[in-house]
Amino acid sequence: MGGNSMEFQDQLNEYIQLVDRELERLLPDEDILQKSVVDAMRYSVTAGGKRIRPVLTLEVCRMLGGDPHKALPFACAVELIHSYSLIHDDLPCMDDDAMRRGKPSCHIAFGESTALLAGDALLTLAFETASHAPQTHGTGCEETLRAISILSRLAGVHGMIGGQVIDLESEGRGIEYPVLHQMHLLKTGALIKAACQMGAAAAGAQEEDLDKIGEYADALGLAFQICDDILDVVGDEAQLGKPVGSDKQQQKTSFITLFGLEESRSNAQMMTTLAKESLASFEHNGFLLALTDLLLNRNK
Amino acid sequence: MGGNSMEFQDQLNEYIQLVDRELERLLPDEDILQKSVVDAMRYSVTAGGKRIRPVLTLEVCRMLGGDPHKALPFACAVELIHSYSLIHDDLPCMDDDAMRRGKPSCHIAFGESTALLAGDALLTLAFETASHAPQTHGTGCEETLRAISILSRLAGVHGMIGGQVIDLESEGRGIEYPVLHQMHLLKTGALIKAACQMGAAAAGAQEEDLDKIGEYADALGLAFQICDDILDVVGDEAQLGKPVGSDKQQQKTSFITLFGLEESRSNAQMMTTLAKESLASFEHNGFLLALTDLLLNRNK
Repeated sequence: MGGNSMEFQDQLNEYIQLVDRELERLLPDEDILQKSVVDAMRYSVTAGGKRIRPVLTLEVCRMLGGDPHKALPFACAVELIHSYSLIHDDLPCMDDDAMRRGKPSCHIAFGESTALLAGDALLTLAFETASHAPQTHGTGCEETLRAISILSRLAGVHGMIGGQVIDLESEGRGIEYPVLHQMHLLKTGALIKAACQMGAAAAGAQEEDLDKIGEYADALGLAFQICDDILDVVGDEAQLGKPVGSDKQQQKTSFITLFGLEESRSNAQMMTTLAKESLASFEHNGFLLALTDLLLNRNK
Repeated sequence: MGGNSMEFQDQLNEYIQLVDRELERLLPDEDILQKSVVDAMRYSVTAGGKRIRPVLTLEVCRMLGGDPHKALPFACAVELIHSYSLIHDDLPCMDDDAMRRGKPSCHIAFGESTALLAGDALLTLAFETASHAPQTHGTGCEETLRAISILSRLAGVHGMIGGQVIDLESEGRGIEYPVLHQMHLLKTGALIKAACQMGAAAAGAQEEDLDKIGEYADALGLAFQICDDILDVVGDEAQLGKPVGSDKQQQKTSFITLFGLEESRSNAQMMTTLAKESLASFEHNGFLLALTDLLLNRNK
């Protein structure tokens, strides 16, 4: 199944629509006193994310013989956590970014305190959504707890948040490759890994398959981050929806500052090959192989 | 069992020690790259909180015939969420409080970005801790999911965070009693309710008992908040560990500004009576009745 085939595109669009509809259902819509924060939550969640993580959750579940609908609450949970992390990352005390996906950042649009609370609320909603999976989607109780355990571990201080801390502390001073590697493995990779492994959990996968999927996700996460670093140098501002050159401006170490553009490109290619090789033992891997190629060749 | 009896004090101290030891075990202690945020997490969690919420979780479980050890992960989870909420509440874009429990606030001690991430990490760790309950404490899978569902609902936009939003929006302008009531029910009450109801969930309580415990918690939460408002006016700064008079300075509506000191005191008394009446149908309610009295008569 090639990345441009009709079949692949149809399946991808179906997944994205499934996630978008469910996210819309999850966001509270009553006219409550705390409406401002609900508006900020919706603004960020519906701001045009590519839904890469939830698609990975649904497809890994399907590839391993599970019913993707049983993974839908986890797909939404990982996207809610992704959204919260972007809101908090953009805050003045963090990266201080005024633009996100071509629109004013959440704190520019709603104020700093509302943005802070909207992030907290999305993080909390992620776990609420996952915990309801048995009621809303007939997911098994043990599968659900396993998914929550994966997500909370990989979104926390040993995962995504850990990566943000390393990133913060390395700003303005050069870091060595091992630190950069660890930072990206956590900051970008951990949530991608959570997305994939929760899909496996929903399918009731054995520990061995969970590990294999973890290897795939680690390689994909690194390839994805190298692409991000490349796009920060050569990307198109209008397509990206944010200014390019921000890494250089913030004196951040990136794959580009350490290895240059050409070697970074070949590193990304190598990581993508590694990722695809980790999928070799799975029979129905066509969609995921095509998706992996698509993510490497993206321009935003 | 009176609030001053030896038996009550012994049991209270035992609960607190149980929680303190488990929280210490939960906080990561490796020498990892992201050590700064771990230090900030530990600083806030061990800053001398009264552990009221976790004690409620353990005791409600015991009162309903459950084994308190099976509720310990939930007791810790609610305390971790309480800690995170204080860190984020103190941030410059929120209440901008430099002192907490007699020590510099987390962002004063560790910087704003580290404090933000420490809060996010504690919130995430709360759900990780709860999700491991079956492995670490032999809690049932369904009981665990029910507890996670209760906690995430009551800590989120329909609970604690919702209360913070209403609080923020009412700053600097007068609000009516119904809004103040709703704000406190959510901001302080929701997490107390989560603490109590998770204890009931750990004991495998019926829906009816869960509701009864919820009524108790609502009344207790309001009594607790009225006491807070009273202490903000008549409290001792050294005992409280924070400046008094902050509500007035921030032009916040409180029970005191709406009803005056005397009527607030009698309201707190009435709410406490209501809370205790909700416990009448439970056989082994001695400890909880004594604790309820103790919370009303506190001076910090």
